Amino acid sequence: MGSVAADSLDRLIHERLRLGIVSALAAEEELSFGDLKQILQTTDGNLSVHARKLEEAGYVKVTKAFEDRRPRTAYRLTTKGRRSLEAYLKQMETILSEAREALERS
Amino acid sequence: MGSVAADSLDRLIHERLRLGIVSALAAEEELSFGDLKQILQTTDGNLSVHARKLEEAGYVKVTKAFEDRRPRTAYRLTTKGRRSLEAYLKQMETILSEAREALERS
Repeated sequence: MGSVAADSLDRLIHERLRLGIVSALAAEEELSFGDLKQILQTTDGNLSVHARKLEEAGYVKVTKAFEDRRPRTAYRLTTKGRRSLEAYLKQMETILSEAREALERS
Repeated sequence: MGSVAADSLDRLIHERLRLGIVSALAAEEELSFGDLKQILQTTDGNLSVHARKLEEAGYVKVTKAFEDRRPRTAYRLTTKGRRSLEAYLKQMETILSEAREALERS
């Protein structure tokens, strides 16, 4: 049953803001810090903390460059990050469809 | 886009073990502490902490009784808990389907 799987869910991706970051990056080749901040409607501090966790896990690659003399931090999903999102989605889809079934049955 | 919604996800249900508890209770009229522990393969401490949070939020109703002179703690999903799971599923299904689409497009 789905609930058994809950404990083996990828903790790194499951956190709400990190799920948002990873999903946003799955949709785009690359996003800047500012893009992500706007998409996710969050604070600099929150975004930094969670993006760093994803970077440390190797799920996200960060590059820093200058654009018109201003620093620009860009984020991409790595192959490892993509595979982990893939696995997470698969597990979570199962959990949700079992919960949905239980709700509809009862 | 799905990532926007991530921050508004019900924090109480989103936590992995609590999602497991709520899903398991959606499937059954009532489960005992021991049933939940077995289904979720977790420790007494962990289960107590998370079940209590769900109880405090009014998502779960706990009753204590004696059965064959031994105490039995039973858990049920309340109407509020059921509605919250319903809302969570709806939001999460959207987030996941958008992430799935992004993965398949890229």
